[in-house]
Amino acid sequence: MASVYSALIHYPVRDREGTIVTSAVTNVDVHDLARSSRTYGLAGYYVVTPIAAQRVLVGRILDHWRNGAGARRTPERGVALSICEAVASIDAACAAITEREGKEPRLIATSARSEGRPIVTYEQERATLATTDLPTLIVFGTGHGLHESVIKRASVVLAPIRPTGYNHLSVRAATAITLDRLFGDGPSD
Amino acid sequence: MASVYSALIHYPVRDREGTIVTSAVTNVDVHDLARSSRTYGLAGYYVVTPIAAQRVLVGRILDHWRNGAGARRTPERGVALSICEAVASIDAACAAITEREGKEPRLIATSARSEGRPIVTYEQERATLATTDLPTLIVFGTGHGLHESVIKRASVVLAPIRPTGYNHLSVRAATAITLDRLFGDGPSD
Repeated sequence: MASVYSALIHYPVRDREGTIVTSAVTNVDVHDLARSSRTYGLAGYYVVTPIAAQRVLVGRILDHWRNGAGARRTPERGVALSICEAVASIDAACAAITEREGKEPRLIATSARSEGRPIVTYEQERATLATTDLPTLIVFGTGHGLHESVIKRASVVLAPIRPTGYNHLSVRAATAITLDRLFGDGPSD
Repeated sequence: MASVYSALIHYPVRDREGTIVTSAVTNVDVHDLARSSRTYGLAGYYVVTPIAAQRVLVGRILDHWRNGAGARRTPERGVALSICEAVASIDAACAAITEREGKEPRLIATSARSEGRPIVTYEQERATLATTDLPTLIVFGTGHGLHESVIKRASVVLAPIRPTGYNHLSVRAATAITLDRLFGDGPSD
């Protein structure tokens, strides 16, 4: 399998009314998505925010767990955060992957809604991931989800995790479930 | 299907050395597990801590999202937290379920390790859940996992999500994946 990367997007995302906004970085998201990404064997995890001060904040969190008191107390967390990096945009994440892998990544978008685009099931995407020789970047939205400009540019939009009924999963939960469905051993395990 | 409940255990859990400890309640765990539990149709979610002051704290968090400023800003979060309650012990959670359902619940333990007990696959537990007329309580550990006394008293110990290799999922991620494997529509969706 070619390398797979995840990214947590703080811009461009939607607010409650669907307006494009920049959301704030949440400390626990930095950890949780790094831990899930590393557990499922991803090659990297990008925290995407255009706000330079927030990227500095992410750098401090990473330093605490990789080199500081956190690394001494909980070394396995440093292992997870070793694959994490803050970048300014989805384009910057794609460029970093292209430089590392020598090929531009496929972009997979995720959404809690049907986005008016053909959606791909987890089973279909598992099959693609098993055979493609391109790297893949899976993007997750904060706030009320990825802005439509991200949905539109993606190669693939994954099916909503819970297509009907009440669905208010946190991005931490949604990321974990998505990675488990794509890379886990499944319910028979 | 009979009613299913979740519980997040802050005592008795293990610390890094395996010693029995009481962990502190984390704000985001209250939300995230309520949101995952409600999304997958569970009947209730218990935050279990023997520390009275921590149960008061949980009560304040619940009040903020059910009745306070949070309810006005994000009403769907109040829906999730409406199924949440803080209780002093696993026994208290079991007693509350027994009173509500008229039958004692089956207790399902979860662990990131193989616990030296026969483990049950998610597929096997899905089959049991589909046919049992008993309520079920699924317990998740904070810290370094449920103390062995909880593992020993459980009817069932679920298989580790990632039985081999690096595994450092947060309890928020592990709960989401467990509920998706037991109650989700699976990778074909």
